[in-house]
Amino acid sequence: MECPIARSLEEVGEWWSILILRDAFHGLTRFDEFQKSLGVAPNMLARRLVALVDSGLLVRRRYSARPPRDDYRLTAKGKDFLPVMLSLLAWGNRHLSGPTGAAVLVKDRETGAVVDPLVVDAKTMKPLSARAVRLAAGPGAGPEIRHRVAQIDRAARKPRPAADSRP
Amino acid sequence: MECPIARSLEEVGEWWSILILRDAFHGLTRFDEFQKSLGVAPNMLARRLVALVDSGLLVRRRYSARPPRDDYRLTAKGKDFLPVMLSLLAWGNRHLSGPTGAAVLVKDRETGAVVDPLVVDAKTMKPLSARAVRLAAGPGAGPEIRHRVAQIDRAARKPRPAADSRP
Repeated sequence: MECPIARSLEEVGEWWSILILRDAFHGLTRFDEFQKSLGVAPNMLARRLVALVDSGLLVRRRYSARPPRDDYRLTAKGKDFLPVMLSLLAWGNRHLSGPTGAAVLVKDRETGAVVDPLVVDAKTMKPLSARAVRLAAGPGAGPEIRHRVAQIDRAARKPRPAADSRP
Repeated sequence: MECPIARSLEEVGEWWSILILRDAFHGLTRFDEFQKSLGVAPNMLARRLVALVDSGLLVRRRYSARPPRDDYRLTAKGKDFLPVMLSLLAWGNRHLSGPTGAAVLVKDRETGAVVDPLVVDAKTMKPLSARAVRLAAGPGAGPEIRHRVAQIDRAARKPRPAADSRP
């Protein structure tokens, strides 16, 4: 698959892997910590950790020679996945919170202030909404993406009823 | 599951659903358009569309009475998922592009300028990195989250080798 969104999902592997990355951002590093946090079968966790190491999101390191013990830490590529997590967290807080409010908050490490994640353009700092942006084929686009972009362009020319109506 | 990241993943359903949302952002609305784009079995696509409607991310609308035909459009909750997609896209472009560069670009609809998605704090506009933020229990946190936060606090007090080493 050529699409960078599809590739990202492919690279991360599955839902469980995102929860492992979440815990790694939380500071967990050891097999038993992940297992306690996730409540997942050890063989499944071991498989997902191997996959995340193979994808270069985590690195496995020996932290004790006797007994031999390894832990798992985020690589630069893994740390760079944080914006995806923060966007998922913000969406969940906004749309899936119970009556008592957000279960998890993001806070500034220095000031302790609650942080409200927002996706903007790095150059103009303008917030990116569906109305403000469109997707286009890039220099690395092959036939699959070019075909999809052409399909989108055709779809965009369809007559459309008024937007935003809800059930 | 209490965690808003886990809940978000649960709500969206599975990998395939994110690709359907991607195509909906692209402007696709009709069953056959999604099918052509995704190359997925019709019964699987139908199931995922029903799930996305049930979760309130898409709304199903009759656009033709004779023959009866429905299409699928993003709700406000669905449109609000865009930052997750843009973060996945930016990560994929950065870490998974081939030698010819990004396959898909995000462009400003008005100016056509290429946009570089960045997650910042909505108040201070400061970029949010793993070094800059931490997660904390919110007002809606129950025992599961409070337990995890306590576990994180314990983990944070562990002695740590130097960070950022890569394999």
